[in-house]
Amino acid sequence: MAIVLPLQGKYTCMKIALAQINVTIGDFEGTARKIKQYVQQAREGGARLVIFPELSITGYPPRDFLEFEDFVQQAGAVLEQLKPLSRDIGILVGLPTPNPQPEGKDLHNTAVLLYQGKELHRQHKTLLPTYDIFDEYRYFEPAASWNTVEFEGLRLAVTVCEDLWNLGNENPLYTINPMAKLMTRKPDIIINLSASPFDYRHAHERIRVLRANVQAYDLPIVYVNYAGAQTDLIFDGGSLVIDKEGNIRKELPFFEEKLDFFDTDEFSLPGQDNERPKEKISLIHDALITGIRDYFGKIGFRTAILGLSGGLDSAVTAALAARALGPGNITALLMPSEFSSESSVSDAKALVQNLGINAETLPITPVFDSTMDVLRPHLGPGFDVTEENIQPRIRMIYLMAFSNRFGHVLLNTSNKSELAVGYGTLYGDLAGGLSVLGDVYKTQVYKLARYINRNEEIIPQNILDKPPSAELRPGQKDTDTLPPYDVLDPILHLYIEERKSPSDIIEQGYDAALVRRILRMVNRNEFKRYQLAPVLRVSPKAFGMGRRMPIVGKYLE
Amino acid sequence: MAIVLPLQGKYTCMKIALAQINVTIGDFEGTARKIKQYVQQAREGGARLVIFPELSITGYPPRDFLEFEDFVQQAGAVLEQLKPLSRDIGILVGLPTPNPQPEGKDLHNTAVLLYQGKELHRQHKTLLPTYDIFDEYRYFEPAASWNTVEFEGLRLAVTVCEDLWNLGNENPLYTINPMAKLMTRKPDIIINLSASPFDYRHAHERIRVLRANVQAYDLPIVYVNYAGAQTDLIFDGGSLVIDKEGNIRKELPFFEEKLDFFDTDEFSLPGQDNERPKEKISLIHDALITGIRDYFGKIGFRTAILGLSGGLDSAVTAALAARALGPGNITALLMPSEFSSESSVSDAKALVQNLGINAETLPITPVFDSTMDVLRPHLGPGFDVTEENIQPRIRMIYLMAFSNRFGHVLLNTSNKSELAVGYGTLYGDLAGGLSVLGDVYKTQVYKLARYINRNEEIIPQNILDKPPSAELRPGQKDTDTLPPYDVLDPILHLYIEERKSPSDIIEQGYDAALVRRILRMVNRNEFKRYQLAPVLRVSPKAFGMGRRMPIVGKYLE
Repeated sequence: MAIVLPLQGKYTCMKIALAQINVTIGDFEGTARKIKQYVQQAREGGARLVIFPELSITGYPPRDFLEFEDFVQQAGAVLEQLKPLSRDIGILVGLPTPNPQPEGKDLHNTAVLLYQGKELHRQHKTLLPTYDIFDEYRYFEPAASWNTVEFEGLRLAVTVCEDLWNLGNENPLYTINPMAKLMTRKPDIIINLSASPFDYRHAHERIRVLRANVQAYDLPIVYVNYAGAQTDLIFDGGSLVIDKEGNIRKELPFFEEKLDFFDTDEFSLPGQDNERPKEKISLIHDALITGIRDYFGKIGFRTAILGLSGGLDSAVTAALAARALGPGNITALLMPSEFSSESSVSDAKALVQNLGINAETLPITPVFDSTMDVLRPHLGPGFDVTEENIQPRIRMIYLMAFSNRFGHVLLNTSNKSELAVGYGTLYGDLAGGLSVLGDVYKTQVYKLARYINRNEEIIPQNILDKPPSAELRPGQKDTDTLPPYDVLDPILHLYIEERKSPSDIIEQGYDAALVRRILRMVNRNEFKRYQLAPVLRVSPKAFGMGRRMPIVGKYLE
Repeated sequence: MAIVLPLQGKYTCMKIALAQINVTIGDFEGTARKIKQYVQQAREGGARLVIFPELSITGYPPRDFLEFEDFVQQAGAVLEQLKPLSRDIGILVGLPTPNPQPEGKDLHNTAVLLYQGKELHRQHKTLLPTYDIFDEYRYFEPAASWNTVEFEGLRLAVTVCEDLWNLGNENPLYTINPMAKLMTRKPDIIINLSASPFDYRHAHERIRVLRANVQAYDLPIVYVNYAGAQTDLIFDGGSLVIDKEGNIRKELPFFEEKLDFFDTDEFSLPGQDNERPKEKISLIHDALITGIRDYFGKIGFRTAILGLSGGLDSAVTAALAARALGPGNITALLMPSEFSSESSVSDAKALVQNLGINAETLPITPVFDSTMDVLRPHLGPGFDVTEENIQPRIRMIYLMAFSNRFGHVLLNTSNKSELAVGYGTLYGDLAGGLSVLGDVYKTQVYKLARYINRNEEIIPQNILDKPPSAELRPGQKDTDTLPPYDVLDPILHLYIEERKSPSDIIEQGYDAALVRRILRMVNRNEFKRYQLAPVLRVSPKAFGMGRRMPIVGKYLE
C-alpha cells in the first residue's frame, strides 16, 4: 500500500472509524480483546483508519498505577500485540510510554499510529491538565517536538485531548499551543484522542472549544472520547466530526460504547449540522445511571442495597439504581423509628411498588433502646445530636449486614447540599460504597425526580410535596437548621463551583450573617467529606478528587 | 542604610535568624501575629535578616484555598502589613502571588524579601513538586526569570524548597536547574525557604541533597523549614546552615517551633559538624506525637477517645495520645465481647493504669443480641463475616456517642499492614477522625512499643508477647487469614513503597501464590482506604493524598 502525497485543501476519500469505547482501568487482557474486536469491525466497515480514545490501552485515569514500571510495560506489550492487526488499517491508540531522557518525568502520554504492521508515528501530549480531577503533570513529561504524519493521502495532526483546549479562553492555562506548532507542517485534518469526563456543561464546552480550533486553523476535526464511567468519573462519549465551517457532521451517542464511521469525502459535500439535543437534567440523569451501572459492572457486583426513608433523596437514588441495575437487583430497607411519620413508611412502600424492587422492613427501636441501656449510665440524661446520630448508625449496621451476607453494595443517598454543610451522620447515612447524588444539589434532586416522573408517577408525588426532614427527633425539619434549599443552593454554588468570596456572595443580595454561617459550615465539615465514598461527578466541581481542601484550616471558619 | 557591594568569596558579618515556625493554614490573623513576633525577636537578637519557610503567610499546603482570589488577596494584605516592620531588618517570607501574564497558571509560589519598608526582591519558585502528596503544578506557574539580590554586603540566591532538589539524583525530575541560572549572578550564599514534610528518611535526604548543592555551587546554604503538622503532613523542622565544605554548622531541633541565629562570619572559622542524631524509630515516635498534638490543637479540640482492645495497636495509639495531649485528656473504652480473652481486658486495664488515662467498660453483647434479634429473620442462620463486622460497628456507635456528647475526637488505631490488606471493618474499627498508625507497619508498631517502653514498662509486656487477634470469633488469630507480619510487611513494603511488580517481589524469594494473593488484597481494598480518616504520614509512601489509586480497576486483581 503506497502512501500518496496529501492533497492540501482537498480530501481524499478515506473512511475513518471512531471507536468510542468503555474499558476497565488496568484490564489489559479485556481491553486488548475489545480493541481487536473494534479494529476488525472497522476493517469490515471499510475504514482505512480507526481511532481510539486517549490512553486507550490502560483506561483513563490510571492514576498511580502509572508509577509501576510493570504496568507501563504491560501497556507496551498490548501495543506490540496490535501491530500485526494494522497490516491493512491504521490504528490510532493511546498509551503511556517511557521518556528516554533521564531529565523530566519518566513517562509521556502518547498517541501511536500503527500501520502496515509497525509504528508509523507517535506524538506525545503537550498540555497536561493538572487541575480539578486531573493530575497529569504528576506522571507525564510534555512533548518537546511536534510532527504530522502522512497517511493514505491525508496529512494528520494528531493531538491528545487537552492539546486543543488552550484556545477560546480569556485566561489560557498554558504558555504554548501544540496545534500552532503542528500547523507549520500544513496538516489536512486534526485528530484528537480524548478522555473528557462529563459534567453538565461539558458537551457544550467541547463543541465550543473544538470550533475555536476549527476557526483558528481552518481544518476539520475528528474527536474520539470514551463512553462509560471510571468510579466517580463518567465519560459521556459524544465523539465528533466537525468540518472546516464548524458544522457538526457527526456526533456519536452519549454514554454508550459505539463504533461509527465517517468518510472524509463527505467534507466536500455541503455541510449540515447534526448536533444532538443536550438537555441538562436528562444528561445528568443518564450520567448517573451510567455511573451506577459501570461501578457495579466493573467491580463485578450485580446487586445494590439502600435505606429508603420515605424522603426524596433515597427515592431518587432507588429509581436511578433500579434503572441502572434492574429492579430485581435492588433491595431497599425500610427502617422506621419512633420519629418516622406514617407517611414516610407509606410513601416508601408506594415507591417500592412503583419500582418493583425488593424491600424489607426492620425496626430500629429495639436496638436503639438496648444501645441506650448500655450508654445511658455513661452519657447521663438528655437527648441531643448524640442520640440523633445513633439512629442512622444502627441503620448502617443493618444495611452493611445485608451487604456482607448477600454481596450487595450499599448506595449512599446524600445530596450535595447536605454534604456541603455537613448535614449527615458519619458512619450513619453518610456510609456507602458509592455516592449517587453527592454532586446533585437538593434543588436539582427535585428536578431529577420530576424528570424521572415525566411519563408516569414513579416517585410518589407526596415525597416531592412534603417538607424535607431527617426525622431524628420529634417534628424535625431541615429548615430548623438550614435555610430553605432555594436559598442555600445558590450560595453553595457561588462558593463551591464559582469560588466566590463571602463579600462577593453578599454583594449578590444574600444575608451577610447567613452567608458567613454557611461558608463556615462548608469549611468545617471537610473532615466528613474526606471519609465519603466516591461521588459520581456531574458538575464542574464535585466533592472528591477534584476538590482538595485542607481539613485543618482557619480560612472562613 | 546603604547597600554595600558583595565581597565575593568573603563573608561580611551578618547575623541571620532562622524562623522555623508552625502555623495554621489560612489563619492569616494568627500567622501575621506570629511572624511579627518573630521579626521582633530576630531584631532584638541583632539579626539583619530573618528567614521564614515557604508560603509562610498561608501555611503549607494551602491546597484548593489557592483557587479563591480572596484567599490570595488576604495573603497579599499580610505582606503589606509586614512592610513597615522591615525598616531595619530584612524579612524573607513566602506567599502565593498573582501571575501577571494571562497565559499559564494564575499564581506563582514566591519568596519576597522586604527591607527598608518596601519589597526589595521577589523570586518565584521554579521546580514545582507534583508527585506523592505534592500538587504544586495544580496551582503555580514556574519562574521564567532568575535573579539574585544584594543585601547588606551579601549577594543572596533565594530559592524555594524543591528548587534545590534536582541535584544528586540519577533520574532528575526536571529539565532545568534554577540554581544554575542564579549562579550566573555570582551569589555569595544560597537561601532556601522550605516546606518539606517528614518521612523517616527525610532528615537524611535533605542533608544529602543540600550537600550536593554545596558541592556543585561551592556556596553555603541556609535552609528554613516548618515545624509542626498540617493534618496528615508533619513538618519536622531541622532547619540547617551548611558551610561550603558541607559541614553542618547548625541544625535546628526537630518538630519544635524555634527561632535561632547564625552569624555568617562564623563561616570564616574552621568548620565542625553539628549534625543531630537521627534514629528512625525515635523520629517516627516524635512525628506521631507532633501529628496528634497539632491536629487537636489546630481544630480546637483537647480530648480524644479510642477503643482499647487489649491489643498492640490500640495500646500504642493510647500511649502516643497520652503523651501528645496529656493522659487526663484521653478516654479509653473497653468493649469486650464474648470472644474477648480474659487477658485482653486485664492487659487493657493494666495499660490504663500505667498511662493514667480515663477508662470505662461497656459490654457489646446486649446490643449485639438485640441487633441479631432484628436481623436473624432476614439473614438466616450462620456466623460469618457479617456477624464479625457487627461487633466493631457497635463499638463505633459507643465511641461516636462519647465523641458527640463530650466533644472527644475518635482516634483510629489501624496499622498500615491491616489497612493495606483490608483487614478491618468499614464504619467499625476503621472509623475515626485521625489515623495515628495508618502509616506504620505492624512490625514497626512492635518497635514503637519497645521504644515507648525503653525506660519503663508502659505497654504491658503481655500485649507485646501474645499473638495478634481481632477477637471477632472464637480463637481467631490474624495468622488465620494473613501470613505472619514479618513475611507480610516486607512484601507490602516492596509493593507500596518500592512499587515493585509481582515478579520482582517473587524474585526476592517470596512464595509466588502468596505474593499474588497479597497484592490482590491490597488493590481490592482501595475502596476501604478511600473512606479512611487522614493518616499521619511518616513514610515515603503513605495511604491518603500521596497514593492515588483507582478504586475500580483490574490491575493485579
